[in-house]
Amino acid sequence: MSTDTLKLYHASGSPNSRRVRRYLAERNLSVSMVSVDLSAKEQFSPAYIEINPRSMVPTLVLANGTSIGEVPAIWRYLEESFAELPLLGSTPEEKSLITMWERRVELDGFAAVMEGVRNTVTGLKGRALAGPHAYEQIPALAERSAARVLNFFDDLEAQLANSQFVAGDKFSVADITTLVTLDFAAGGMNLPVPKTHLAVKKWYATVSARPSAKA
Amino acid sequence: MSTDTLKLYHASGSPNSRRVRRYLAERNLSVSMVSVDLSAKEQFSPAYIEINPRSMVPTLVLANGTSIGEVPAIWRYLEESFAELPLLGSTPEEKSLITMWERRVELDGFAAVMEGVRNTVTGLKGRALAGPHAYEQIPALAERSAARVLNFFDDLEAQLANSQFVAGDKFSVADITTLVTLDFAAGGMNLPVPKTHLAVKKWYATVSARPSAKA
Repeated sequence: MSTDTLKLYHASGSPNSRRVRRYLAERNLSVSMVSVDLSAKEQFSPAYIEINPRSMVPTLVLANGTSIGEVPAIWRYLEESFAELPLLGSTPEEKSLITMWERRVELDGFAAVMEGVRNTVTGLKGRALAGPHAYEQIPALAERSAARVLNFFDDLEAQLANSQFVAGDKFSVADITTLVTLDFAAGGMNLPVPKTHLAVKKWYATVSARPSAKA
Repeated sequence: MSTDTLKLYHASGSPNSRRVRRYLAERNLSVSMVSVDLSAKEQFSPAYIEINPRSMVPTLVLANGTSIGEVPAIWRYLEESFAELPLLGSTPEEKSLITMWERRVELDGFAAVMEGVRNTVTGLKGRALAGPHAYEQIPALAERSAARVLNFFDDLEAQLANSQFVAGDKFSVADITTLVTLDFAAGGMNLPVPKTHLAVKKWYATVSARPSAKA
């Protein structure tokens, strides 16, 4: 389904943008895509701050001009507006368990990788946290992030040893955030999933074979 | 409405528990309350780990034994199950904007206070992050947290200067997280909202006059 009245501001290299692109691909939804050039710091331009005062991508802009930032908020808009094939769950129990698992993966995994990258990459000096305020890098945090990512791999292995997908027996946004996290850890921190984590490896092969994986 | 088949594991001094207690009070919902004694480290007991492997409060346990952790996931279960007087929004646009604002307050405000407290309090040595894994405190993080909280106050003032409640013209979970954050900052970090922040002060007076504020 094409919904040209919606505009997604995104960046090709942004893992958060990928969480939304992958959701759209799974749902066969297409929206107008607008690239934001992070290397030219376009996210800090007055025009973009008007759209998202936190200077972050992605942002979804509705036909009436309302801006929606934050990945789970964008998912929620799309899910509530185009309800077929839900990726946020159908029953109250499913919806809450998917919220719980997606959030655990984000806080324990995705955020740990982001912290590791933002506290080490030279180009992000003074930008250790995304958003409108400047914060210096903290070397001790970079070290801690790597330890957190390894703990996350162990916790994920324990979950996937008992569960077909991250939040149960159906593919959901929890799997999207997990896939983006693993690719981001391997690419951004040189921390691939260890070979010993057989359940994660098996899940990864299944999930990355889906057509949406390239989004 | 009383829903005795639901059990909420919580701790009286836990700000995250308060986010759920306040939601229940606003909705006039009551569930079976089970106290977890954090001072006796009951959250690390095998019995509690069975309920919540991350050793965190609060957790909602359903009649069928399913455990739901993470505040937004618990809210989602309650909202989807008992739909009158929604605090997560009614239309797709409202739902996504409330998700966005609640999340911004949590990440920029609540999480910054939590980080400040966890990286300074002596009793939390080796417990700088909640959850099953041990992490040492980082002094530089404690300093940065205080700066983040002050920036959060400024951003909140800008929003409330233009908006009756945090996510628009209706009371929502975004207001609950904001109120808990401000009380936590004042009590846990000795960082009350500055007197200059008139819009925040006015909002605080309105919101803390609601009967649910004591929850």
